Amino acid sequence: MDKFRVIEVKQSIFENNDKQAEELRKELKEQGVYLLNLMSSPGSGKTTTLSRTIEALRDEMKIGVMEADIDSDVDARTIEQLGAKAIQLHTGGMCHLDADMTRQGIENFGVDGLDLVILENVGNLVCPAEFDTGASKNAMVLSVPEGHDKPLKYPLMFSVCDVVLVNKMDVLPYFDFDMEKCKEYVHMRNPKATVIPICAKTGEGMEQWFDWLRREVAQWNA
Amino acid sequence: MDKFRVIEVKQSIFENNDKQAEELRKELKEQGVYLLNLMSSPGSGKTTTLSRTIEALRDEMKIGVMEADIDSDVDARTIEQLGAKAIQLHTGGMCHLDADMTRQGIENFGVDGLDLVILENVGNLVCPAEFDTGASKNAMVLSVPEGHDKPLKYPLMFSVCDVVLVNKMDVLPYFDFDMEKCKEYVHMRNPKATVIPICAKTGEGMEQWFDWLRREVAQWNA
Repeated sequence: MDKFRVIEVKQSIFENNDKQAEELRKELKEQGVYLLNLMSSPGSGKTTTLSRTIEALRDEMKIGVMEADIDSDVDARTIEQLGAKAIQLHTGGMCHLDADMTRQGIENFGVDGLDLVILENVGNLVCPAEFDTGASKNAMVLSVPEGHDKPLKYPLMFSVCDVVLVNKMDVLPYFDFDMEKCKEYVHMRNPKATVIPICAKTGEGMEQWFDWLRREVAQWNA
Repeated sequence: MDKFRVIEVKQSIFENNDKQAEELRKELKEQGVYLLNLMSSPGSGKTTTLSRTIEALRDEMKIGVMEADIDSDVDARTIEQLGAKAIQLHTGGMCHLDADMTRQGIENFGVDGLDLVILENVGNLVCPAEFDTGASKNAMVLSVPEGHDKPLKYPLMFSVCDVVLVNKMDVLPYFDFDMEKCKEYVHMRNPKATVIPICAKTGEGMEQWFDWLRREVAQWNA
């Protein structure tokens, strides 16, 4: 029934991950494929955000999704039901993807003709931040229930992300979440980061996020 | 001003973590110190749960807290303000604690005379589950906003935990969280796990959790 394949990606044998990442990024640039590495904690709403993004942009650009997960295929099923090309990457217990694992995924997936590939990384604020995957840019979803202090506790994640989507804005009244402090802490880690408050469920703020992605994909192919 | 110390724990040189863990557990048993390894995602409410636990039990038993964090000391400050003995363990970017890192913490902390030591592990559902810390038991906090599907996506974490606290029950009406499914999925991973719905903020379910801890500490010293 399911069209998407499940690929077991193996831990890289390469010592120099940064070099592998640069090579992959260069090749994708030549192919005109923009790769977005999307990271977050478990349960922040990455898959819902992704679903709404596909629905909004699928008529403008060709989108593929690589879902990394330790061993389930819940997310690839969800994405495929939206009509997007999807593949599930199983990391076999590994807590992150590196550049070579990403390359294994890309090569199995086949990205020819795609404009935008979104890599949904393993839900984890620590390890994925340590490995350049070869993505064009890094994005993360931080949800309101997690709290505004997360950039203080997971500094590397926030310093490597170009855009931080603050999701679940619909439940803001029920949590002690200070958006100004959140922005201040994110900018302590990365002064250039774009912070966009969103609610994937209600659509709040999503246009700003779609515009960010549209600009990025257009510039990559310029 | 701050009385707690900050210890930089170094990655273990030991290959056999399980053996190191067994030795530490045995030594702590002889000293009559119950060590609870508390794990969760970032922002699930571990520190608030811990704070309420200390307030409830501090007159019955002597409690110490070891806060593991990548590099902040937000949590140790919070705990110390409750009058509990606290120490901050900095992992220097490491995403988990192993048995030797826990031992470094224990030895610097000084657990003599303590009945219960709670190790607040790094906020991460992946890596901490892979390393036995030498704790008497493992507990985790899963918060309602994270979703009931987490045991499907992070199987190892749920299979190593003896008790799962489902926190933030006060916001249940605002999320699509199915408690029955959550229990079913947890028990798929670990049929013996105790699942306790709580709200650290309002106190809901906390007595059941305190009773679980009281029984555990009493049995450890029996």
